[in-house]
Amino acid sequence: MAIKRIAVLASGRGTNLQAVMDGIKSGRVRNAALRLVVSDNPKAYALERARASGIEALWINPAAFPGREEYNLELIEQLRKRQVDLVVLAGYMRILTAEFVRSFKDAIINVHPSLIPSFCGKGYYGERVHREALEYGVKVTGATVHFVDEGTDTGPIILQQAVEVLPEDTVESLAERVLEVEHLLLPRAVDLYCRDCLKIEGRRVWIKAD
Amino acid sequence: MAIKRIAVLASGRGTNLQAVMDGIKSGRVRNAALRLVVSDNPKAYALERARASGIEALWINPAAFPGREEYNLELIEQLRKRQVDLVVLAGYMRILTAEFVRSFKDAIINVHPSLIPSFCGKGYYGERVHREALEYGVKVTGATVHFVDEGTDTGPIILQQAVEVLPEDTVESLAERVLEVEHLLLPRAVDLYCRDCLKIEGRRVWIKAD
Repeated sequence: MAIKRIAVLASGRGTNLQAVMDGIKSGRVRNAALRLVVSDNPKAYALERARASGIEALWINPAAFPGREEYNLELIEQLRKRQVDLVVLAGYMRILTAEFVRSFKDAIINVHPSLIPSFCGKGYYGERVHREALEYGVKVTGATVHFVDEGTDTGPIILQQAVEVLPEDTVESLAERVLEVEHLLLPRAVDLYCRDCLKIEGRRVWIKAD
Repeated sequence: MAIKRIAVLASGRGTNLQAVMDGIKSGRVRNAALRLVVSDNPKAYALERARASGIEALWINPAAFPGREEYNLELIEQLRKRQVDLVVLAGYMRILTAEFVRSFKDAIINVHPSLIPSFCGKGYYGERVHREALEYGVKVTGATVHFVDEGTDTGPIILQQAVEVLPEDTVESLAERVLEVEHLLLPRAVDLYCRDCLKIEGRRVWIKAD
């Protein structure tokens, strides 16, 4: 089984990127090579993390393209050029075009800070997810890793784990505890993908036993 | 603190009713007296369970009333007559009218077999909840106990607990494991209510520490 080449797309701090890098280093993520980190934001700390680990870091400036379609074509080209097998979205704040999703069919993974289908869809990213969960008054939330399809947060679910909401929780404290779970689930999902242990059947994802 | 008088509304087997009865008997549900079990279905085994424990069992025949409004007025009258403090919906298959909900404001508790706001709302009851969860491909579902407001499954959440979805799960096996959690959560919520340990603030329910 050929080693899978991974590209991570990130707009911010890149803690999920770090979790994947750590997973590869420690051997929990197997059969994977992190080939490239791309950001739309030149100041994303994710780029810094990549460089610090000797991984190619690429800023692609959205302002240099007439629109989203052209920007995504450039993304596709850069990833293709490096023969990327798996695209991991780790806090990437832009919506991918249908063409991008088709170009990497069943090969894009995203991590979302709630138990999908709760608190997801258009406009649900970052702190807002946790704010809405707290305002709704749920007692349980969690994290989801899923394949990306042409909808927003609608693709087949790979892994989910629950997180209890505590009475004293703020948006920040809840986000932090959910992020810890994201850091567990994302590397695990990448490992499963890279070892060909995931099978999509309609909306269900089957996990082959180790 | 006066003992709370409880009425349970049930349409079916009444296993959640049994969980509340067992909770009262064992002392896990405190400060509570089960006063009445009402069903819209004369063959509901819930009525049988009530009678077997010496609790008043009342079938109110929907066909005897011109419509939902009149049926609910009768329900209200029967509960008022017995000075009911708390109404517990335990597999009650009819939607209550706004007038019923107003008559027992913040004093109606329902149990729902998913992690609200996932897989809830109009049409989501019984097996359909679990079928949709399986078809959606979630890896985590659960149970919710919540106050009833004028919407469907929209009231403030009292307790939730997650249940893992297993690869081999069928609608039946998943329903069974979620039901076990319902049987834990519902008596716990009734106990908290009857000991005045719940405080509703907007959509959030605060639980006073014991």
